[in-house]
Amino acid sequence: MTTKSKTRPQILVTNDDGIFAEGLSVLRAALEEIGDVTVVAPERPRSATGHAITLHKPLRMERVRLPWGGEGYASNGTPSDCVVLGIFALMPRCDLIVSGINLGPNLGEDLTYSGTVSAAMEGTICGKPSIAVSLADYESPDYGPAARFIATLGREVLQRGLPPEILLNVNVPNLPQTELGSAVITHQGRRRYEGRVEHRVDPRGRAYYWLGGEIIAEDAEDGSDSAAIMEGKISITPLHLNLTSYAFAEELRGWKF
Amino acid sequence: MTTKSKTRPQILVTNDDGIFAEGLSVLRAALEEIGDVTVVAPERPRSATGHAITLHKPLRMERVRLPWGGEGYASNGTPSDCVVLGIFALMPRCDLIVSGINLGPNLGEDLTYSGTVSAAMEGTICGKPSIAVSLADYESPDYGPAARFIATLGREVLQRGLPPEILLNVNVPNLPQTELGSAVITHQGRRRYEGRVEHRVDPRGRAYYWLGGEIIAEDAEDGSDSAAIMEGKISITPLHLNLTSYAFAEELRGWKF
Repeated sequence: MTTKSKTRPQILVTNDDGIFAEGLSVLRAALEEIGDVTVVAPERPRSATGHAITLHKPLRMERVRLPWGGEGYASNGTPSDCVVLGIFALMPRCDLIVSGINLGPNLGEDLTYSGTVSAAMEGTICGKPSIAVSLADYESPDYGPAARFIATLGREVLQRGLPPEILLNVNVPNLPQTELGSAVITHQGRRRYEGRVEHRVDPRGRAYYWLGGEIIAEDAEDGSDSAAIMEGKISITPLHLNLTSYAFAEELRGWKF
Repeated sequence: MTTKSKTRPQILVTNDDGIFAEGLSVLRAALEEIGDVTVVAPERPRSATGHAITLHKPLRMERVRLPWGGEGYASNGTPSDCVVLGIFALMPRCDLIVSGINLGPNLGEDLTYSGTVSAAMEGTICGKPSIAVSLADYESPDYGPAARFIATLGREVLQRGLPPEILLNVNVPNLPQTELGSAVITHQGRRRYEGRVEHRVDPRGRAYYWLGGEIIAEDAEDGSDSAAIMEGKISITPLHLNLTSYAFAEELRGWKF
């Protein structure tokens, strides 16, 4: 491993699409402009892993060459495992964690399933400023504009810090730099799915099931993450780790047990 | 499968310790008193899976006999997958989802990793009132008191419903019924870990890593989930799905991008 600077920011990059994904390489290159980047990412795609961590088996890390240049560590662990390994087993210092660039949006309720967002949450739990970034499209991805934006945002975060328990979830429309709208601060919206299980029969006559479903309702109200993307703007949603509904706690105190 | 009543509440039970876990059986038996119970649970333990769902491979379900009586469906999916399968592939109607009884607490930040809590979140996303329940101990578990409490709480939830986007996270101390304190409404506390990666070398000289770590700080401030457990009380934390930090959003609007 090359010697890391003592003064430049030390940045950990991970993702859930796997270490050989283009989005990770483009992100790494952009962040090299603002600091020294260490890459630790899953050896294979781990989308929709949620905030899984590996407690029951040992983890491995192997140094690999990235297809778009540079090197990184491939792990058999989840995105969150990679964050823990990076901070506690590899990096003498870690100033910023960036997870992405995910191929596809992480909006509304979907982000509960997201390995990309969970890796940033893990960074936050470990006490580090953390950003998750997703390109809000699956077709013909152009990661360049998103990566450049994250370099700018990352510089701000390094200067200002983030409060404890807060991370940033960024979604970027898949648009050329010239057509990309401004960045707006949003709230997590809602997405509703329908017809979520498809029943099939295998060649041996046994049933199996595919999870799926179409989005039937998308919260496009002003200020939501989805609304920003539909308007061609970059969405930044500040998230916190505390899930308590204080509003409903009050009502619940009136219940009888 | 026995014919389900059209008038009795229809209850889906799952867990993340696997379908053959004692906690699930005891829960199932207690809930049979307030409704008809369908069990769909992972065929093997899936602790710390977080909110993982399975989108990239087909799912199976197999009817099995439970070791403490009754029947259920074992699936190769995650706890959240089991909820989706139960609601959309098995049950004509579902009025309540209960996930547990987990062996070990789900308190503070830990619940982000919890398959038990994520299954209840999935129920909420699917629009059903959902409860996660955990026994706050790993040794000599006595699930009886927790199961009886959940039958009482479940009856209340069936009568009153829960608001959209709200679920209940319940932790019960491992105490005999006579020593069990009252139920209190709590907020999600904090737990901090230290020394989270242990480095070892395998018999072939290659490095591997165990995630671990000791709790170094536990939020025992008044009103937290952990504080309730320490006082021998049942903790009920209302959780919501919206992770947005509205407080920090205001500050973030002052940043320059």
